[in-house]
Amino acid sequence: MPDHAGRIARLREALPAAGVGALIVGAPTNLRYLTGYAGSNGLLVVGPDDAWFLTDSRYAEAVEPLRAFLQVDAAQRYLLPAVAPRLLELGGGAGRIGFEADWLTVSQHDALLADAPAGVALVPTTGLVSGLRVVKEPGEIAAIRAACAPLEAIYAELAAGGLVGATEADRAWLVETRLREAGMAGTSFPPIVAGGPHGALPHAEPRGVAIAAGTLVVVDIGARDGDGYCSDCTRTLATGPLPDGARDDYALVARAQQAGLDAIRPGAVAGAIDAAARAVIADAGAGELFGHSLGHGVGMDIHEGPILRADNDEVLRAGMVVSVEPGVYRPGRWGVRIEDLVVVTDDGCEILTGFTKALVGI
Amino acid sequence: MPDHAGRIARLREALPAAGVGALIVGAPTNLRYLTGYAGSNGLLVVGPDDAWFLTDSRYAEAVEPLRAFLQVDAAQRYLLPAVAPRLLELGGGAGRIGFEADWLTVSQHDALLADAPAGVALVPTTGLVSGLRVVKEPGEIAAIRAACAPLEAIYAELAAGGLVGATEADRAWLVETRLREAGMAGTSFPPIVAGGPHGALPHAEPRGVAIAAGTLVVVDIGARDGDGYCSDCTRTLATGPLPDGARDDYALVARAQQAGLDAIRPGAVAGAIDAAARAVIADAGAGELFGHSLGHGVGMDIHEGPILRADNDEVLRAGMVVSVEPGVYRPGRWGVRIEDLVVVTDDGCEILTGFTKALVGI
Repeated sequence: MPDHAGRIARLREALPAAGVGALIVGAPTNLRYLTGYAGSNGLLVVGPDDAWFLTDSRYAEAVEPLRAFLQVDAAQRYLLPAVAPRLLELGGGAGRIGFEADWLTVSQHDALLADAPAGVALVPTTGLVSGLRVVKEPGEIAAIRAACAPLEAIYAELAAGGLVGATEADRAWLVETRLREAGMAGTSFPPIVAGGPHGALPHAEPRGVAIAAGTLVVVDIGARDGDGYCSDCTRTLATGPLPDGARDDYALVARAQQAGLDAIRPGAVAGAIDAAARAVIADAGAGELFGHSLGHGVGMDIHEGPILRADNDEVLRAGMVVSVEPGVYRPGRWGVRIEDLVVVTDDGCEILTGFTKALVGI
Repeated sequence: MPDHAGRIARLREALPAAGVGALIVGAPTNLRYLTGYAGSNGLLVVGPDDAWFLTDSRYAEAVEPLRAFLQVDAAQRYLLPAVAPRLLELGGGAGRIGFEADWLTVSQHDALLADAPAGVALVPTTGLVSGLRVVKEPGEIAAIRAACAPLEAIYAELAAGGLVGATEADRAWLVETRLREAGMAGTSFPPIVAGGPHGALPHAEPRGVAIAAGTLVVVDIGARDGDGYCSDCTRTLATGPLPDGARDDYALVARAQQAGLDAIRPGAVAGAIDAAARAVIADAGAGELFGHSLGHGVGMDIHEGPILRADNDEVLRAGMVVSVEPGVYRPGRWGVRIEDLVVVTDDGCEILTGFTKALVGI
C-alpha cells in the first residue's frame, strides 16, 4: 500500500510556500495519488493539521480505508457546498484557501465562492500535487515497470507474422485483449497500429484496413494497472522488404532516440534532451519531418510532467519517468517512431521497455 | 453525415438570448456534436456570421472536412492564445464573448482574459450546446438504437448459463469483447457485473470473484458507437433458485420501472417521473433502499440531460432519450436494478433496449 498519509503530509509542507493555509484537491488523478480513491465524486480538503475527504453514499464502503488517515464524510451528494463547513473545522476558515486552477471550472469556482466562509480568499494554485507526483517512489516505479512487462510479448507476437493482412483495428484489439490476459486493468490510451502512409500521422487511429506487406507499421501501445499506473512504448515493425529510404529513416530515428537516452541524467534540462535527439534528425536534413516533442512524463496519467520539449527548462531528477520517442513522418509514404519509457537513475537512465529496437520483420 | 452546419446555425440563433455575440466552445462532446471533430486539442469560436475552428497540425488531415462549413486553422499548438485574433476577425472583438463555464478551468479563463482584445467581456454561459443536444435528431436516435441492439444477445448469452462459476471481471470482459465483435467502438462505461451482496452497491466494480449459484446478478452495460453515441441497459439475472424475498424485490422493481415508463410523455416533468417510480417502492416500504435518481439522458455522453431526479423541473420533449432505472439494494444480501433506455415519442415513449424483463435464470 502506498503511504497516502505521508504524501498528504508532504503536500501540507508545500502549502506555506504557495501562500495558502489549506488546499482543495479534486483533480481525479491527484485525489487517487493522495488517498487511493478512484471514484467519480470525491473532494479532499487539506488543512494545516488535518484533512477531510468528501464523497457520496455510493462510495461509503470504498472509502472506509481512508478513515485511517483522514476525516471522511461519505454523505455528501453535492461536494462543493460541503467544503465551507469543513474549512471552518480545519481552521482554514479565515485564511487563504488554495484550489487547483488547472482543474476547477469557472462554474465550480463560482459555487465555491458563493458558499465560502467570511474572510476566506480563494487562491488559484498549480502544480502542488503534480510537483509531488513527478518524482516516483520505488513502489511506483515497480508498478510502471510491471505495466511495461507485458508489452514485450505483444510486440513479439505482432512481429512474428501477425500483421500482414490483418486490419489495424483488429491488431489494436489484440493488444487490448493481451493486456487484459496479462492481468492489466486495460490500456493507458487507445492503441495505435498504423501501417504504411497511415504511420505518417503521429496520432493515427487504427482503421479497418488490411496492413500491407513490404512497409513499416507504427505500433504505439501502453497498459494501465489496477492502481492506475501507466506504461507507454512504440516500436515500428517491418512487414517484409522495404521501399528505398525506409531503412534509412528507421536507422536515423534509432540514432536520434539513442541520443535522447544518452542525454538523460539528473541535472539535465528537459529542453536540452529534446534538442539532443532533434539535432540528429535535423543534421540528416529531416528536421521538418519530426514535428512533436521528444517525450513526456508517465505515471498515473499517461501524459504528465516533465515534458521533454524545447521550451521546458525543468531539470530532471532521479526517479522521474519519461518517454523518449522521436519520429520521422514522411507524408504519403510511412512513419517511424521508436519510444522507450525510462526512469531517471543517479547517473543516467534505465529503460523499462524491453523489446528489441533492431528493425524486425524484414 | 449529421448536419453540422445546421447545428452551428441553431447555436448561433441562441446566442442573443444568452447575452453574447460570440461563443467559445471547447467541451469535447460539444465540439464533436457541432463539428464531428473527436481529437484531443480543438476549439470552436462561433461568431455572429462565421465560425473558426482551431487545432494543431496533428489533426490537419482530420479537419479537412470541416472546411466545408467552417474557417479552419490547423496550425495552432496553443489554442487559447489563438482565440483573440480570430474573435477580431469574426466581428465579436468589441462585444460580449461567451465561454462554457462548466468546461473552462480557472487557469484557461485567466489565459483567455490575458489575451482578450480591448473591449471584450468574457461571459460565463451554461447549457447552450447541451440545450441543443438534449432533443435528438432522427439520425441520432437511429445511432442510439443501433448501440442498444447488441446488448440483447449479450444478456441472452449471460442468462443461458454463462454466469455461475465465472468471475464478475471475466463476464465484464466478455461484454467488452462481444461489443467489439458487434462492431461497436467500445463500451459507454465500464461494465458492471455484480453478484449477490455485491449487487447491493449501485456502482460496484467487477471483482475477480466467482459468481455464486442461487442469487441475483446485476448486469449494467452499454455500448459506444464510432461516432460517440451511447447505449445503457441493466438487467438483473438469477443464477438458480433464489432466497426468500429476492423474487419479491425483483417484482417490486419491475413494477416501479413500469410506473416510470408509464409516466414518460412530452410535457411530463422530470421530477414527477422519478416520483412515479419511487412511489411504488416507497409504498412497499422499501423507499430507503432506492437511493439514486431514476434516470438520466443518454446521447454522446453516457450521462447528460435531462436527469430524472426529484428536484429537476425540466419538461420532457419528444426526441429526448432517457434511462429509466429504479433499484432496490439490500445491504449484505442482493441488489435489483432494471433499466431501459427510451426515446420520448409524441404520446409516450419507445423502449430501445429489447431483452426481456421477466426474471430469467431461475
